Amino acid sequence: MPQGRPARVPDDGLTTRQRRNRPLVIVHTGEMKGKSTAAFGLALRAWNQGWPIGVFQFVKSAKWRVGEESALRALGRLHEQTGEGGPVTWHKMGEGWSWIQRPGTETDHAADAREGWEQVRRDLAAQTHTLYVLDEFTYPMKWGWVDVGDVVATLRDRPGHQHVVITGRDAHPLLVEAADLVVEMTKVKHPMDAGQKGQRGIEW
Amino acid sequence: MPQGRPARVPDDGLTTRQRRNRPLVIVHTGEMKGKSTAAFGLALRAWNQGWPIGVFQFVKSAKWRVGEESALRALGRLHEQTGEGGPVTWHKMGEGWSWIQRPGTETDHAADAREGWEQVRRDLAAQTHTLYVLDEFTYPMKWGWVDVGDVVATLRDRPGHQHVVITGRDAHPLLVEAADLVVEMTKVKHPMDAGQKGQRGIEW
Repeated sequence: MPQGRPARVPDDGLTTRQRRNRPLVIVHTGEMKGKSTAAFGLALRAWNQGWPIGVFQFVKSAKWRVGEESALRALGRLHEQTGEGGPVTWHKMGEGWSWIQRPGTETDHAADAREGWEQVRRDLAAQTHTLYVLDEFTYPMKWGWVDVGDVVATLRDRPGHQHVVITGRDAHPLLVEAADLVVEMTKVKHPMDAGQKGQRGIEW
Repeated sequence: MPQGRPARVPDDGLTTRQRRNRPLVIVHTGEMKGKSTAAFGLALRAWNQGWPIGVFQFVKSAKWRVGEESALRALGRLHEQTGEGGPVTWHKMGEGWSWIQRPGTETDHAADAREGWEQVRRDLAAQTHTLYVLDEFTYPMKWGWVDVGDVVATLRDRPGHQHVVITGRDAHPLLVEAADLVVEMTKVKHPMDAGQKGQRGIEW
């Protein structure tokens, strides 16, 4: 992998530099841990490049992202104070929003998700960030709260040089088709199978 | 996953708290991107917990970890200056060391890898860190430079509360057996298949 040698050179009329710098849509899916963690790891590289980073957390406002949020916000403050790295913006979709569907509350969650996506659309149009982390964004698409056709078209037509990483299980086939890079995290062995519970510093 | 509900409750005589806080050996393997990235994402959570983090880079000193290194070192400096988060120590195995085997130079690479592992052993014995990232450490084991039996025994007998994450392809079966959590990153789609080259901020 580190050699970065493509399997074939495409006949697309682009120079190597243009091809190298093509903005990507990346999907981290699969049943296993590491989808979001790897997306936040990618944010470290983006920060080091001085790229503006926008995180859109399509999950309930729980402890499950507190470590990444705290560390990335700290890096964002460091940027403000010293100019090192890039700025970090962290959006949480409707603070009460949960990705667990509950009877009778679905409407509000759907509205929150749509509102979050509208913010992403506005930021893409304005070229606000260079890296977008749309964390757990596969679920609003899966549940029909956000139209996958609209997402795919918006991503396809986004201006400038903006990378987008989308995480979550059950990525929609149209999203997979539209993505440049899709990684599936699969389970080989998990401590919860052996009765291990989630723990501080590992799961959040 | 966020519910953290174990599939079964083991009959191990431990309380939930003891079970929750059991230190883990985690392996990120598979052919695809995201193995190391997810490990460094985990380091963000560890940093937020104030845990001492030790990174041991068993890869050549190239641009491929420069983003993670820069961002994690920045978080480490922030800890030194403000007390926020945890301290970060970053070891690079023999600066000229490459994970690509080259005829005639193997001896030195093997020695570098063994030296790196000896440092890990010393730190584990001294309980220097709470999270260890042994990046690309599967290769020295695969190539027989570091004895996998020794690694497994050392990890099994490590004192205190130390989490260890090991990344790289082709994890040795004995390592997989010894690990608490194993995630495999598999390829669904990769831009290099379409002639895309590696790029700044994404691959490094």
